[in-house]
Amino acid sequence: MINKIAVLEETIIKLAEAKKYASLRDFLTTLNPADIAEAFGAVSDQSLPLVFRLLPKELAAETFVEMETEQQEILIRGFSDSELKAVVEELYVDDAVDLVEEMPANVVSRILAQADPDTRKMINNILKYPEDSAGSVMTTEMVELQGSMTAAQAIEHIRRVGVDKETINTCYITGRTHKLKGVISIRSLILADPDALCQDLMTPTVVSVNTLEDQETVAQMFSKYNFNALPVVDGDNRLLGIVTMDDAMDIMEEEATEDMEKMAAMTPSDRPYLSTGVFDSFKQRVPWLLALMIASTITGWIITGFEDVLMAATVIVAYIPLLMDTGGNSGSQTSVAVIRSLSLQEVEFKDLFRVIWKEFRVALLCGVPMAGLIFLKILLLDGQSLLVAAAISVSLLCTILLAKIVGCSLPMLAKRVGFDPTLLASPIVTTIVDIVSLLIYVLMISVIL
Amino acid sequence: MINKIAVLEETIIKLAEAKKYASLRDFLTTLNPADIAEAFGAVSDQSLPLVFRLLPKELAAETFVEMETEQQEILIRGFSDSELKAVVEELYVDDAVDLVEEMPANVVSRILAQADPDTRKMINNILKYPEDSAGSVMTTEMVELQGSMTAAQAIEHIRRVGVDKETINTCYITGRTHKLKGVISIRSLILADPDALCQDLMTPTVVSVNTLEDQETVAQMFSKYNFNALPVVDGDNRLLGIVTMDDAMDIMEEEATEDMEKMAAMTPSDRPYLSTGVFDSFKQRVPWLLALMIASTITGWIITGFEDVLMAATVIVAYIPLLMDTGGNSGSQTSVAVIRSLSLQEVEFKDLFRVIWKEFRVALLCGVPMAGLIFLKILLLDGQSLLVAAAISVSLLCTILLAKIVGCSLPMLAKRVGFDPTLLASPIVTTIVDIVSLLIYVLMISVIL
Repeated sequence: MINKIAVLEETIIKLAEAKKYASLRDFLTTLNPADIAEAFGAVSDQSLPLVFRLLPKELAAETFVEMETEQQEILIRGFSDSELKAVVEELYVDDAVDLVEEMPANVVSRILAQADPDTRKMINNILKYPEDSAGSVMTTEMVELQGSMTAAQAIEHIRRVGVDKETINTCYITGRTHKLKGVISIRSLILADPDALCQDLMTPTVVSVNTLEDQETVAQMFSKYNFNALPVVDGDNRLLGIVTMDDAMDIMEEEATEDMEKMAAMTPSDRPYLSTGVFDSFKQRVPWLLALMIASTITGWIITGFEDVLMAATVIVAYIPLLMDTGGNSGSQTSVAVIRSLSLQEVEFKDLFRVIWKEFRVALLCGVPMAGLIFLKILLLDGQSLLVAAAISVSLLCTILLAKIVGCSLPMLAKRVGFDPTLLASPIVTTIVDIVSLLIYVLMISVIL
Repeated sequence: MINKIAVLEETIIKLAEAKKYASLRDFLTTLNPADIAEAFGAVSDQSLPLVFRLLPKELAAETFVEMETEQQEILIRGFSDSELKAVVEELYVDDAVDLVEEMPANVVSRILAQADPDTRKMINNILKYPEDSAGSVMTTEMVELQGSMTAAQAIEHIRRVGVDKETINTCYITGRTHKLKGVISIRSLILADPDALCQDLMTPTVVSVNTLEDQETVAQMFSKYNFNALPVVDGDNRLLGIVTMDDAMDIMEEEATEDMEKMAAMTPSDRPYLSTGVFDSFKQRVPWLLALMIASTITGWIITGFEDVLMAATVIVAYIPLLMDTGGNSGSQTSVAVIRSLSLQEVEFKDLFRVIWKEFRVALLCGVPMAGLIFLKILLLDGQSLLVAAAISVSLLCTILLAKIVGCSLPMLAKRVGFDPTLLASPIVTTIVDIVSLLIYVLMISVIL
């Protein structure tokens, strides 16, 4: 895929430089809008408006939606009012909302001025919902049908109104004041007897979400129920909009990225890596680094406090990093596995003891051979006494047990009390395990030696 | 959602215990198949076949597909041949393939014996493709149209064949020997003039994948192009099948889980957490733990090798854990951010120097205040000399710089030479950074003190 885009980029730039605009236009119309948008990333800011104007109206709007925010802004600033109106008119309302959310205020007022009054009203309605809620990601352009329509009448209705709708693949049967009664697919309308009534063809058990539902739940419902679209309703079950599958996929990708960032001790960002400024990345990362570093100073106190025990022999100090690394790695494995299962709803809080029991046995299975190996290494390679080898390898086994148990129970407890379990991933688990395992180590050394 | 399922579980179990089967059947028919399947998880193995038999035929098949493998096996073992035939006949071919892949051999031969010959042939064809390839996740039940058909003829054709197709929302225009010529949505067929020809309505620039393409690429193409379905072709561009959106969502979820597992130093598993046995989890985790532990022994050698420098003062040893933790955390942040961007194709190898330059500046921004804080702490709280404070805090700054640069360049280099960048995530980065930063520390201490 990377090579394909590189070829497109080169062709576009060469044709533009040679001023062969007619050929460039013909070339662009053979491409997919997502590919055009990606290839336009290589076009200079100066040439971009010129090249973009070559696109036919519909392809232009479809390409515009797929472009990076920075490039969209360059284009809008270069557009005349009538050019902007042409693009905005072709956008679906949820894409228009995304645009409005990302542009600076002066650009936004120009966009809204060019939208027709109905669209402007829809955009403003969606903007009212909290960020990352179902309401904020829905589109209001769906097909509503009456239960008393026949399949033929419904298809006729879709033919009249469908061109402005984001999807016609799933339609909704509503009653008075848009109360949601059922869902019907275009497939059942087409395959049904033309005289059958929609109310007999529809599925009445409609799964829907409230406008304020978190978008993560919305994406989970898509993957659970295999929907093409999910209806969004208010407190009185009135149909306000739908979330479509393409948005659900974007949400899933975004949420997986957020989870990974949080597990690596970063405040999540919804911008791509290279478009995030250095200062923004700094703000994403430094609070966690600082907090964890301050927590780490406890390890220094322990070492100073047990100076006599630790500084008695170099070998004792020499195994501290190995102990801490192994504890950190064991804890990471468990916390990541448990956090992912929690977020896919494979595991719930009521499974806590089952999970701890499982991790305890895995820790024993992993820990015993590892501790054995280290025992032999200290005895044979390092030439230390049996007591030293025993103290260090027993500490290693305890560290692995502790890391696995802390790694699984912390995220589950966090979820139970309403915190985000993702935040209790490897970095915090590692810091806690480091502190406790260092304590175990010094105590073990004091007792055995 | 969790509460909803708990209520369903209770109702099903109570009605079944009270032997109120007619009411239970009526209750089940009001539910969504995915919810029934989840609630059936709480039904005992003895009662499951009894309760399942209450479901009407189509709902039974839809529910069956959504159930856990273990429960599917219990049901199949309890089915008579005619019951098994009824379920297998209702399955789409890609779901039948999933079933065949997961069941033990004796169950598989029963399933294949009950499938009709055409279905059996399709299942066997799909089974030939390598695991995780586009061919292995496709379905062969799609709608093919001729370019010379009018929109009305095409809809008439879909009405005839559609009932057996997994989706009719996207149809494909093929020529002789099924060569793929274009794609057409049901939407454009319905909204078009009934006399318009398919070849004029279709989009001729079809994006397709080869049967052997990796499923991860397939999922990325869905999220890039916002498709409802993606055509799968052979080397001669002949249409063999399609991958549908619901499968693409499952792949995305599976791939994100795999990435997280690999980043936490585990061999990925495609089973849910609680269904993975203790011994399987052990095998997933111990190779990495062992390898990383062995790599960690290098830190022990460094400490033993620089015994004189390190053991000169407790304060020098006391800061080793803090240095290592901070290095590990800084490296994790960067490697996770870069790996995720690589997998979303936001970053490529050609961006290497841009990425390093960005991380260098972020590391300076984070490192200078952190090193400053530690400098003050050592000077004022620990009451150490200026030289000691300088040596430790400069080492900390170097560690952060090093961690950020190793954390971003290792995964990018791995991708460049064809390795999976996900494997070069925090655990390996941490181990490397630990070793190098310990070296920097002892050298710094030797030079300054």
